[in-house]
Amino acid sequence: MKIKNLKVIGFDADDTLWINEPYFREAEESFCDLMESFMPRHDINRALFSREISNLPLYGYGIKAFMLSMIEAAIHISGRNLPIDVVSKIIDIGRRQLDQPVEVIENVEYVLQSLQKTYRLVIVTKGDLLDQEKKLEKSGLAPYFHHIEIVSEKGPANYQKLIKHLDIQASHFMMVGNSLKSDIMPVLEIGGYGIHVPFHTTWEHEHVDIKITDPKFRQIEQISEILNMM
Amino acid sequence: MKIKNLKVIGFDADDTLWINEPYFREAEESFCDLMESFMPRHDINRALFSREISNLPLYGYGIKAFMLSMIEAAIHISGRNLPIDVVSKIIDIGRRQLDQPVEVIENVEYVLQSLQKTYRLVIVTKGDLLDQEKKLEKSGLAPYFHHIEIVSEKGPANYQKLIKHLDIQASHFMMVGNSLKSDIMPVLEIGGYGIHVPFHTTWEHEHVDIKITDPKFRQIEQISEILNMM
Repeated sequence: MKIKNLKVIGFDADDTLWINEPYFREAEESFCDLMESFMPRHDINRALFSREISNLPLYGYGIKAFMLSMIEAAIHISGRNLPIDVVSKIIDIGRRQLDQPVEVIENVEYVLQSLQKTYRLVIVTKGDLLDQEKKLEKSGLAPYFHHIEIVSEKGPANYQKLIKHLDIQASHFMMVGNSLKSDIMPVLEIGGYGIHVPFHTTWEHEHVDIKITDPKFRQIEQISEILNMM
Repeated sequence: MKIKNLKVIGFDADDTLWINEPYFREAEESFCDLMESFMPRHDINRALFSREISNLPLYGYGIKAFMLSMIEAAIHISGRNLPIDVVSKIIDIGRRQLDQPVEVIENVEYVLQSLQKTYRLVIVTKGDLLDQEKKLEKSGLAPYFHHIEIVSEKGPANYQKLIKHLDIQASHFMMVGNSLKSDIMPVLEIGGYGIHVPFHTTWEHEHVDIKITDPKFRQIEQISEILNMM
């Protein structure tokens, strides 16, 4: 596939530009360590996951939402019998996560450097703005991006708004990301290009089993393969 | 003052378009009710406020940040001796706040209706995107706005970015809001217009004592007075 007439390339942030999901997995492990006197680890994980999902409409995405879900799940798991110090330790897990160093994924910087000569690059993320701005700052990747677009949900309607907001046609837009469900499928649906760069860990909620045959779709192993398409 | 050559009008959201701060005051009262066996109410309020301020760089603004600060403050106030049910009750305070109905301030809809015929209207807020989108939806004001701009901090640099992003000059931009510190002063600083509509309750952190003499500044009592300036 050679892609023509592109104007704007959107990049997902977490696990596309920098590593994120492994930190959530680590946090979940620490959470299980704190709670394992109450339940087997597998059940703790299920309880936390179901709390996160039921809280999504109210809390949205991001680490603060995750912290609140951990506290609620812990109270539930303990049968309302949770030592208050465990609440403090859960808060510490989240605070450490908010303060995590940013590890940029291999070749990302080189790719952005090349692409920004020809295209307007934006970050499209459903994370928390403060959090994502801090990560962008720490990552050293800020100079390559025109701006960050925060969306509450990555569905076709929000991508449509983004296209309108960027003042371009969908066919001038390409999205690069690690989630088929959030970064690729809704963009293909509105007529843009979608480049899937899988990351080794994907949050269960983002996982989909599907074969995509859209000619505007491509899956690559390494972000650097984008450069061969341009 | 007659304002000419305007293209875009930015509106702060909370306590400019709809009522917000009284709900935080109410939440603080409920928090004091829960904690008053540990400390006098005034000291509880001080402890909560100082926790919120010290958490701002890590948590940012919004109700989830407020919930986490309440929990941390409560653990501290209780001398690490907090019954776990109080944590649940604090979470309930926040959840109720997230689910609050939206009360649009008097005359706001009429003013937006008039202005949107001539100007592009945007919301500029440092709240949480999901939260603000939900409020905008509930308020019925969504049709009047081009989009929501979420900023992590309302300083001159972020307004400058916004102006660039909107593809206009600062002199084509006017900001309307209830906070001199966040909505007005930084906008005047970069050369835009600032219209201050004080709200009866202002969060202590937003309060400034200052006389502004900038010719691009005006303070009004009622949002409907904007229509006389155009």
